[in-house]
Amino acid sequence: MITDAADLAPEPLEVLTEAGRIVAVGTALDRDGAEVVDCGGALMTPGLIDCHTHIVYGGDRAREFELRLEGASYEQISREGGGIAATMNATRALSVDALVETALPRLDHLLAEGVSTVEVKSGYGLSIAAELDMLRAARKLAELRPVRIVTSWLAAHALPPEYRDRPDAYIREVAIAGLDAAHAEGLVDAVDAFCEGIAFSPEELEPLFTHATALGLPVKLHAEQLSRIGGVQLAARHNALSADHVEYATEADARAMAEAGTVAVLLPGAFYTLRETQAPPVAAFRAHGVPMALATDCNPGTSPMTSLLLTMNMGATFFRMTVPECLAGVTTHAATALGLAAETGRIAPGLSADFALWEADSAAVLVNRIGFNPLKWRVFGGEVA
Amino acid sequence: MITDAADLAPEPLEVLTEAGRIVAVGTALDRDGAEVVDCGGALMTPGLIDCHTHIVYGGDRAREFELRLEGASYEQISREGGGIAATMNATRALSVDALVETALPRLDHLLAEGVSTVEVKSGYGLSIAAELDMLRAARKLAELRPVRIVTSWLAAHALPPEYRDRPDAYIREVAIAGLDAAHAEGLVDAVDAFCEGIAFSPEELEPLFTHATALGLPVKLHAEQLSRIGGVQLAARHNALSADHVEYATEADARAMAEAGTVAVLLPGAFYTLRETQAPPVAAFRAHGVPMALATDCNPGTSPMTSLLLTMNMGATFFRMTVPECLAGVTTHAATALGLAAETGRIAPGLSADFALWEADSAAVLVNRIGFNPLKWRVFGGEVA
Ligand SMILES: [Zn+2]
Ligand SMILES: [Zn+2]
Repeated sequence: MITDAADLAPEPLEVLTEAGRIVAVGTALDRDGAEVVDCGGALMTPGLIDCHTHIVYGGDRAREFELRLEGASYEQISREGGGIAATMNATRALSVDALVETALPRLDHLLAEGVSTVEVKSGYGLSIAAELDMLRAARKLAELRPVRIVTSWLAAHALPPEYRDRPDAYIREVAIAGLDAAHAEGLVDAVDAFCEGIAFSPEELEPLFTHATALGLPVKLHAEQLSRIGGVQLAARHNALSADHVEYATEADARAMAEAGTVAVLLPGAFYTLRETQAPPVAAFRAHGVPMALATDCNPGTSPMTSLLLTMNMGATFFRMTVPECLAGVTTHAATALGLAAETGRIAPGLSADFALWEADSAAVLVNRIGFNPLKWRVFGGEVA
Repeated sequence: MITDAADLAPEPLEVLTEAGRIVAVGTALDRDGAEVVDCGGALMTPGLIDCHTHIVYGGDRAREFELRLEGASYEQISREGGGIAATMNATRALSVDALVETALPRLDHLLAEGVSTVEVKSGYGLSIAAELDMLRAARKLAELRPVRIVTSWLAAHALPPEYRDRPDAYIREVAIAGLDAAHAEGLVDAVDAFCEGIAFSPEELEPLFTHATALGLPVKLHAEQLSRIGGVQLAARHNALSADHVEYATEADARAMAEAGTVAVLLPGAFYTLRETQAPPVAAFRAHGVPMALATDCNPGTSPMTSLLLTMNMGATFFRMTVPECLAGVTTHAATALGLAAETGRIAPGLSADFALWEADSAAVLVNRIGFNPLKWRVFGGEVA
């Protein structure tokens, strides 16, 4: 397939693809024998990548959202079985097929905005069986839609009630033992955890990350979102693919991430929903050359968001990321955050032919507009999807 | 048409419509001779109403947005012909048909989220001819799509360069003289103005509002957005339909609005884009019984937003409006803000059969979700549109 894309090139850019992969990019390519597709001057970007989501879950938390607006405290809501416990119970109650069914509309909203690759985490089952089911559902999504699904084992997301005050036992008996089972079944692309005062400490997570490395699995971490307790340093020590949220990361953390090749995955949807005021240290990430990605963090509680375009706008508005930074954040750097830099995220020979074509003059329009979707075509693996 | 809607009623609600209007609402209605439409348990709300937009304009300001993120100051951008002057020039350069063409995708995005009624302002022409063309384009939108368009004459939006330092002359020669012409052509449903330090003072606007009243036209006002200079008091003195933005309104202003029957139209998209920190006095509006509406303020500079669902979420997130307040803000109170309380905005006998049907369990879901559109059907004047 050859496509003419306006992009930022003065002349229409041509992209030659074969068997789902990009073969050549340039102008005046040899079109011999190729089917020519005229993109009508549309803006071409790499297919977008949402590198941090929790789109597989049961129930919703809309009632809890409503109660909080009416003045209910987090304690009241927690007493009434709200919060992550509510999602855990709703998730455990669903079969794999039912989990797939509830996740599909969320996935479809992402795809409708030109997304080609979606990371999906477990983390609401909090038992071996329910965590496995979440990742089985995630894998099934890739059979039902033309999309690349990348999974993360996030059993260390919260402590379920049956392990109250026994975090080390939970890590050993569920997070690590379950990881072995999930890995044996081919369900795990990376291992994630939530490192926070309200979740797990770096010390508690160390054995999990050590075990992941022994299995040859890369790690990543929800780190320094609400406070700084050493998550980034843990992640960097284990050469994590990414450290995510990182609002409270410091200059020293940025340096450690740069040395470890760890991507900073910024999640403005959660920042917005939680009405945070501490923005991540974007200037330090720039100064130290830490790649910044942007993702929806789609989850029922702190970021019930299914728009990667809006995520870019929020990255610009809240974090003052530039237009090229926002676009790289949902393409090139998001691919790196998933260990897929050689597979997708750029328009370059050898990579998968994953594109989004937009009725827009420039990338600035994509970042600037709010609640607007100018997608013309989504191309996944060389096919208009 | 009879529809079964779940809404908040324990039993499926039935709505009987005839010739585009609601005839009865209840359960076990007399269906004799009626065509029955089963809504499959969908949530039914009134058709949504966006009561404050600037969707008719030329050009965009994405490049300016990009430059600001790269550190350019407002002064630099202004020197390079950015800001409202850029939109004025781009708007003046377009014919009525071209204005319609650029506005249609914005309108279509609103309609795709269940909107039945859209207010559209002039205000980027800033000459009589160009302001008339903007409202001619607005009227034309209603011929091209099944939607109710309500217009506002907003010539007093900014001072064009040819009237620099002569605001009184501009009000007299363009805003008032042009209003006569526009009104004679049937283009004007209400008269609006921008009362702000960077725009017009209450004293400068007084003759315009007096003239509007003499013509029998209602007024409304962009007031106290960035500072408090007396706009709300001006609006209340003239029994304005609405005072809009009102971040800096006081308790006394809320009292005056309540007495005048003036709706507070809150515009969280501009609050977000401008990264404002002063939220409107929602508690005072509640205490004094001032109805609160929510609107996109869709415009190329300070709120390039075309999602009324996201507007509700921002009203809840930024302004702590409750779910019922958010829903009333884009239905009942938005209708009142347009003088249309007897025409649309509620599901009640006598009103236009304007509905939105949603794949959602509750209104809380509509407000809670971000960048998600669960619209099933849009019904305008009794027809699925
Ligand atoms: Zn997360
Ligand atoms: Zn406005």
